[in-house]
Amino acid sequence: MKPETFRTYGHALVDWIAHYRERLPELSVWSHVSPGAIRAQLPLDPPEEPESFEAVLADLEQIILPGLSHWQHPRFFGYFPANAALASVLGDMVSTGLGQLGLNWQSSPALTELEEQMTEWMRRLLGLSDGWRGVIQDTASTSTLVALICARERMTSHGATRGGLQAEELPLTVYCSGQSHSSVEKAALLAGFGRDNLRPIATDAAHALRPEVLVEAIQRDLAEGRRPCAVVATIGSTATTAVDPLEAMVAICREYGLWLHVDAAMAGSAMILPECRWMWQGVEQADSLVLNPHKWLGVAFDCSLYYVRDPQHLIQVMSTNPSYLQTSADGIVTNYRDWGLPLGRRFRALKLWFLLRLEGAAALRERLRRDLALAQWLAAQIDATEGWVRLNPVHLQTVCVRHEPPGLADDALDRHTLDWIGRLNASGVAYLTPAVLDGRWMARISLGAELTTQEDVAHLWQAMCAEVST
Amino acid sequence: MKPETFRTYGHALVDWIAHYRERLPELSVWSHVSPGAIRAQLPLDPPEEPESFEAVLADLEQIILPGLSHWQHPRFFGYFPANAALASVLGDMVSTGLGQLGLNWQSSPALTELEEQMTEWMRRLLGLSDGWRGVIQDTASTSTLVALICARERMTSHGATRGGLQAEELPLTVYCSGQSHSSVEKAALLAGFGRDNLRPIATDAAHALRPEVLVEAIQRDLAEGRRPCAVVATIGSTATTAVDPLEAMVAICREYGLWLHVDAAMAGSAMILPECRWMWQGVEQADSLVLNPHKWLGVAFDCSLYYVRDPQHLIQVMSTNPSYLQTSADGIVTNYRDWGLPLGRRFRALKLWFLLRLEGAAALRERLRRDLALAQWLAAQIDATEGWVRLNPVHLQTVCVRHEPPGLADDALDRHTLDWIGRLNASGVAYLTPAVLDGRWMARISLGAELTTQEDVAHLWQAMCAEVST
Repeated sequence: MKPETFRTYGHALVDWIAHYRERLPELSVWSHVSPGAIRAQLPLDPPEEPESFEAVLADLEQIILPGLSHWQHPRFFGYFPANAALASVLGDMVSTGLGQLGLNWQSSPALTELEEQMTEWMRRLLGLSDGWRGVIQDTASTSTLVALICARERMTSHGATRGGLQAEELPLTVYCSGQSHSSVEKAALLAGFGRDNLRPIATDAAHALRPEVLVEAIQRDLAEGRRPCAVVATIGSTATTAVDPLEAMVAICREYGLWLHVDAAMAGSAMILPECRWMWQGVEQADSLVLNPHKWLGVAFDCSLYYVRDPQHLIQVMSTNPSYLQTSADGIVTNYRDWGLPLGRRFRALKLWFLLRLEGAAALRERLRRDLALAQWLAAQIDATEGWVRLNPVHLQTVCVRHEPPGLADDALDRHTLDWIGRLNASGVAYLTPAVLDGRWMARISLGAELTTQEDVAHLWQAMCAEVST
Repeated sequence: MKPETFRTYGHALVDWIAHYRERLPELSVWSHVSPGAIRAQLPLDPPEEPESFEAVLADLEQIILPGLSHWQHPRFFGYFPANAALASVLGDMVSTGLGQLGLNWQSSPALTELEEQMTEWMRRLLGLSDGWRGVIQDTASTSTLVALICARERMTSHGATRGGLQAEELPLTVYCSGQSHSSVEKAALLAGFGRDNLRPIATDAAHALRPEVLVEAIQRDLAEGRRPCAVVATIGSTATTAVDPLEAMVAICREYGLWLHVDAAMAGSAMILPECRWMWQGVEQADSLVLNPHKWLGVAFDCSLYYVRDPQHLIQVMSTNPSYLQTSADGIVTNYRDWGLPLGRRFRALKLWFLLRLEGAAALRERLRRDLALAQWLAAQIDATEGWVRLNPVHLQTVCVRHEPPGLADDALDRHTLDWIGRLNASGVAYLTPAVLDGRWMARISLGAELTTQEDVAHLWQAMCAEVST
């Protein structure tokens, strides 16, 4: 395709994207297509000859659009916000258009240096000390896998360069809250620790890790001849945005010489607000930290920030140095290929740069404060209304709730919960995610979509009340 | 940012990208900035208040552009082609603009089903049987890590769900060619095998794995109480595009019950040409396969295709199933979160869809055949010119060469090689990558940038001849 043609089609697609964003409020939040319905409309083979742009655009509208669940919708309250703010979309367009590939510094100096500076900008916005160095990964799943591998290698004095994990005499163990994200268990399994050596620690009434249970588990493992290796602290758990007691965990990790990884994937964005930083008090003593600006903050997915205290250790674990990647600049530059799993890297810093410059830090803080206030408002409605039970302290933007009519319990209550949520989601008016808490289904209302207003939350609350009374 | 504003700025950036592509031929292929020069131009903190779009665009032009090495340049012959064809750029714009997130099928049915269909389109284009199922990963590094973890779990009957790799009594071993990509060693180390259990197998004169040496290594490990686990075959090695003897390796893997992973990251794109498929004859008997349409084929980075014979095994290894991700569709749909490392996934299939439809399969084949012919032309010049030594059989688009003036050998020859390549790259006329082969530096000329013409290759050859005679 010639640049001139790209110009024409590119304009048309920018218009299409703008139009998509404009009409979001009128669309059903959740897609109602049946499994297989999209594929059934696509031919078995790619075309031999070029098709017209108009044909592709028509299919985008008629086949793809009905198959979307609209994460950018003002009444999307599911999972967690995944804001692709339009300012960051612009930055990502440039990234793809430039076709840069970060293999080493020399292969795209600007890609590397803008990433260095954007992780610095974010570090300062978040109130972190200059003892941290950052890198952009794709997701928190990857960041946590990297963290656990680094923990493994520190504990084994780089066993990977010798016989690997299979040569270790005593099994290494990993600790996390019973409410930690599924990616922590996945990372522990993929890194070779094995599920038998993963300790989900019991939580308190607020679903935060109980430090005294953590200590007991560590001591039991030591007594039984295992080697405690790493602890994952969750700041803002997926189910209820529970906050693990980081300072107590820091002290425990110090005492026993364990790696401390902080998973602040969701809550991390809130740390641009000084009033939220109590949640990760103690973070400066951790070894690694992940937070996802591609959630609440507004950077188009994927943009997961991974910070470490000891970049040299990370580099030693992840480093490869084939001849074709060596350059004369190597000693004095950052080669981000040695900071994560993939060798090739996209120019992701551009979307962060565009967002921060075109919106400004003050506006981002204001938006997050708006969402915190909306969550408080919703919590207040719930607290004031008979039949509704709020299930979490609302520190952040997620409200967990159950409607408990008199006389309903156990499985019948679960059925009621799933029924009203199912009806509400099917209505297309709003979307929220059912999840299990303490063995029972509940509704998880995750605020923070960029377009959400007070009216949208009021609309949701109205719809919730209407659904439970049908 | 309002959609209306995005429309204006988006048009401006589409124009900027088109203009960037138009002026590529006049730009120095390689960036000449000094380490730190980009960062030095960026403020320490993000702005509090929004900056103007014009200011950002100006910095893109004045700060970022000089810091780019131009992978899309017609005289980029470095590393490997990483074509971001403009048709695929359009698809990626849509992906970012939609802000979709594939956590499970329900969270974006179209994202999942288009990915299913695009991996099918590619499977059929590549001439693979319908015994394969595909998924899009970010890079071959990730795909190979996934493959080795799957091999580990098959050999240990899912040891990860018990005591992990550290509970295995006999060490598992992994085999690859001594010419395999650095990501294979990295994956083996990250997956916990340890370097002592990785066997780089000696290669023949064409730098292909010697199967009899592979058998010897397996037998030695068995005799010494280790458990051979996986073999990685490289189809198109990074240094010289060497082709491992896949059929012989298939037979060996069958005999000893080993996982066979095929790394066709570079050469895989060529398999859309029936005349190239001899290179991976035997691939149908492999367990897993990776190829990168983000290289030669033209899909904007990142788009690595990972195919497996047994998706159920992959899912069992990678699966997580927290309550909030469960939906009523689960039994009958594909949940790609269980096909790789990250939970969240971009709508990557769009860029493949746009490329294949707007270009058509015939044009892609034609472009690849053009590049094969250009490589043959360059090889013929080298063969016909005194002082130049071609170092690899040119099956694909990479030509490896050394200029060997009479009387120069060993370190002096290395210095000569690095000198003329350094001068050529510094000239900005073209870029090619120096690499070490059999202990000596050489020039690796990787053709296949989308814009490269016969004139560009002739220009390169002229420049090479000029540089060695200065």
